[in-house]
Amino acid sequence: MLKIGILGLGTVGSGVVKIMQQNSVNIHNKVGTDLKIEKILVNNINKERIVDIEPGVLTENESDILDNPAIDIVVELIGGEEPAYKYIMRAIENGKHIVTANKLVIAKHGKEIFKKAEEKNVQVSYEASVAGGLPIIRPLQNSLAANRIEKIYGILNGTTNYILTKMSEDNQSFEEALLKAQEMGYAESDPTSDVDGYDAAYKITILSSLAYQRFVDVENVYVEGIRNIAIDDIKFAKEMGYVIKLLAIAKNSDEGLDIRVHPAFVPENHTLAMINNTYNCVYLHGDAVGEVMSSAEGAGQMPTGSAVVADIIYISKNINYNKQEYPKIDSCQKNNIIDTKEIESSFYIRLSVFDKPGVMAKIAKIFGDNNVSLASVLQKERLNPVVPLVLITHSVKEKYLYKSISEIKELEDVNDINSVIRVEKHI
Amino acid sequence: MLKIGILGLGTVGSGVVKIMQQNSVNIHNKVGTDLKIEKILVNNINKERIVDIEPGVLTENESDILDNPAIDIVVELIGGEEPAYKYIMRAIENGKHIVTANKLVIAKHGKEIFKKAEEKNVQVSYEASVAGGLPIIRPLQNSLAANRIEKIYGILNGTTNYILTKMSEDNQSFEEALLKAQEMGYAESDPTSDVDGYDAAYKITILSSLAYQRFVDVENVYVEGIRNIAIDDIKFAKEMGYVIKLLAIAKNSDEGLDIRVHPAFVPENHTLAMINNTYNCVYLHGDAVGEVMSSAEGAGQMPTGSAVVADIIYISKNINYNKQEYPKIDSCQKNNIIDTKEIESSFYIRLSVFDKPGVMAKIAKIFGDNNVSLASVLQKERLNPVVPLVLITHSVKEKYLYKSISEIKELEDVNDINSVIRVEKHI
Repeated sequence: MLKIGILGLGTVGSGVVKIMQQNSVNIHNKVGTDLKIEKILVNNINKERIVDIEPGVLTENESDILDNPAIDIVVELIGGEEPAYKYIMRAIENGKHIVTANKLVIAKHGKEIFKKAEEKNVQVSYEASVAGGLPIIRPLQNSLAANRIEKIYGILNGTTNYILTKMSEDNQSFEEALLKAQEMGYAESDPTSDVDGYDAAYKITILSSLAYQRFVDVENVYVEGIRNIAIDDIKFAKEMGYVIKLLAIAKNSDEGLDIRVHPAFVPENHTLAMINNTYNCVYLHGDAVGEVMSSAEGAGQMPTGSAVVADIIYISKNINYNKQEYPKIDSCQKNNIIDTKEIESSFYIRLSVFDKPGVMAKIAKIFGDNNVSLASVLQKERLNPVVPLVLITHSVKEKYLYKSISEIKELEDVNDINSVIRVEKHI
Repeated sequence: MLKIGILGLGTVGSGVVKIMQQNSVNIHNKVGTDLKIEKILVNNINKERIVDIEPGVLTENESDILDNPAIDIVVELIGGEEPAYKYIMRAIENGKHIVTANKLVIAKHGKEIFKKAEEKNVQVSYEASVAGGLPIIRPLQNSLAANRIEKIYGILNGTTNYILTKMSEDNQSFEEALLKAQEMGYAESDPTSDVDGYDAAYKITILSSLAYQRFVDVENVYVEGIRNIAIDDIKFAKEMGYVIKLLAIAKNSDEGLDIRVHPAFVPENHTLAMINNTYNCVYLHGDAVGEVMSSAEGAGQMPTGSAVVADIIYISKNINYNKQEYPKIDSCQKNNIIDTKEIESSFYIRLSVFDKPGVMAKIAKIFGDNNVSLASVLQKERLNPVVPLVLITHSVKEKYLYKSISEIKELEDVNDINSVIRVEKHI
């Protein structure tokens, strides 16, 4: 029998308990021995729970798990940086194997954690940290190991994908859709980490470290959220055959690593455009396998629980059959991340201009002088002195685009530059 | 250093050599040691090859691999039942680990192979046997291990999917599309295994054994191919909002295992309907994870090579770090496969009837008497005494449907029953 200690009994923790209870026979067969939940750390042992817990299992003292010699595997489901990171390191120090769903801790401190784990001869698994129940961490480690991965495009945050779907399908504003997401339990009361793109940034950092065998400092990842997406942008996107998604992108080439999170226009007939609501998707290209696309519910009690329990089973099998596995990531390679200013992309630009003769000519001249060429222009008649002007550029380095934008801003005939969003034509 | 022996240097074999050459540094880093291709079994060592092979590596004598004490891992890429099966067993007997892409051998003889492997303490990996480069075997073993899988729907044969795509997009007949597939190298000169559904049957058998932890005798799987799909069926499907796909289905319930391969109407907005050309797709539902969908190129030199090399890396890591892994499949469970006659489904039926008053009433009466209710009826005016009549039924057990069909066949006003195809409304 192997004994499990769980840190946290929130949404995911309750899912883990539920899955381990309902599939216990199945799990026993796979592992070759029983798994017992020995202790669960909670803030208040008297609080009502949605799952049945045997008496004596709940504890308010982390030491009952971290320093308990009976416990083989510690499952960290507290989330956030501290005390999660501190607890993980202490558990490893005490020779315990680790399962975690904590993308922030793995993205920020993976290097130290894996190093310590190798020292102490224990395993660390984190399938649940990216894209909930979608198998992606271990496929990158195993089934796709023969490939030089060339690019990864992910929709990795369910909250923002839900918000963008609502905005698109129900014509809701960002604020309305966010409120709806909060009502549905898809967004936290402080939605910063999701809507500003940080959550997706942690996840693409983790995927990059596996795909490209190099640790990436998450602080170096360019991050742009979806707060500024207007309903007008969504409408214009539709009109031009696109859907706006929050993409997490990591491309590897001889020039370096192009890694970023930002909203982007995605061609409406691309698979990524069809991933809606809280679904996540990972789309990648490997030199041997070609395109691989996987999609599943990206969060929630049971999907995330599925990944956590899979990791528990995996580690337990290894313990029971006497194996060890370490992430073999070469952290010596230089983290040569490409500055987004140097990255070529098409851009969608929405401006408000005064409806006067010659304004388009002035704007076009600035673009031309900066070697930015236009792919399409959309100008709608309005009964207003200020009219929207929508442009899509051909592929251009970001620095030239922004140089043009800053010059266009100075034009007297330009009232405002409302939106600048990247167009990912060639995914 | 670990030494590899490869049986066969056809399409996939050449892909494996190519990938191992071009990603050798990457592979070395992952495995922690060098992998050397020691010997490759071919029919003719003097034949021109598309990959660079060192002198002395090619051999026409299988014993140079199977009985060679220097070789650690045997990679079987001959395909077909014999001598592949015999060679695999002999290699295992000699203590060699096995990587194979052979769905026929794994589906038919997996049980004996895994038993022998456990006896001899060697590993058998077969990620490439299903859906080419798409990670599905190991995700079922690991990342999805916490789930009770409830259903699997697969598009598992690239050849038939290509043919159906051509028929649908270019209005080609089955024969024309098959010819095109043969020209493109997607179909063999004898296309039986693909177009008659056997290839997909082997694959769904393998997936079922992993998902449901039971060996399935492939002889018990209901198999129906796509030879009889007429261009008219494809057109009518389109008109009614469906796409015809060759589905491999495996559903598990308390009643038993519902496993089958047949063409089916798939709602046009379902993900499976959007998988075209030679792409494969696995769509599954687990009690914890919910829906998971994965798609990739299902065959071909590099995608299949990707999966084979991943298996080589996986086994090599295990050897190098001293681990073993066996498929833990409980073969004692009864193979309680549900007879397709007892399975409920909607059906699409295309008949040619003589354009006389009362014919629809007679047909409807027969259906009614057999408790088959109709969901929709499509009758087109033609300048012909014989007109097509297209029906879609509500969900009904197959045995009642076929009882009705046999009675309808006897009606004087019915010229022919052209097609009967299942409609999978609720995937």
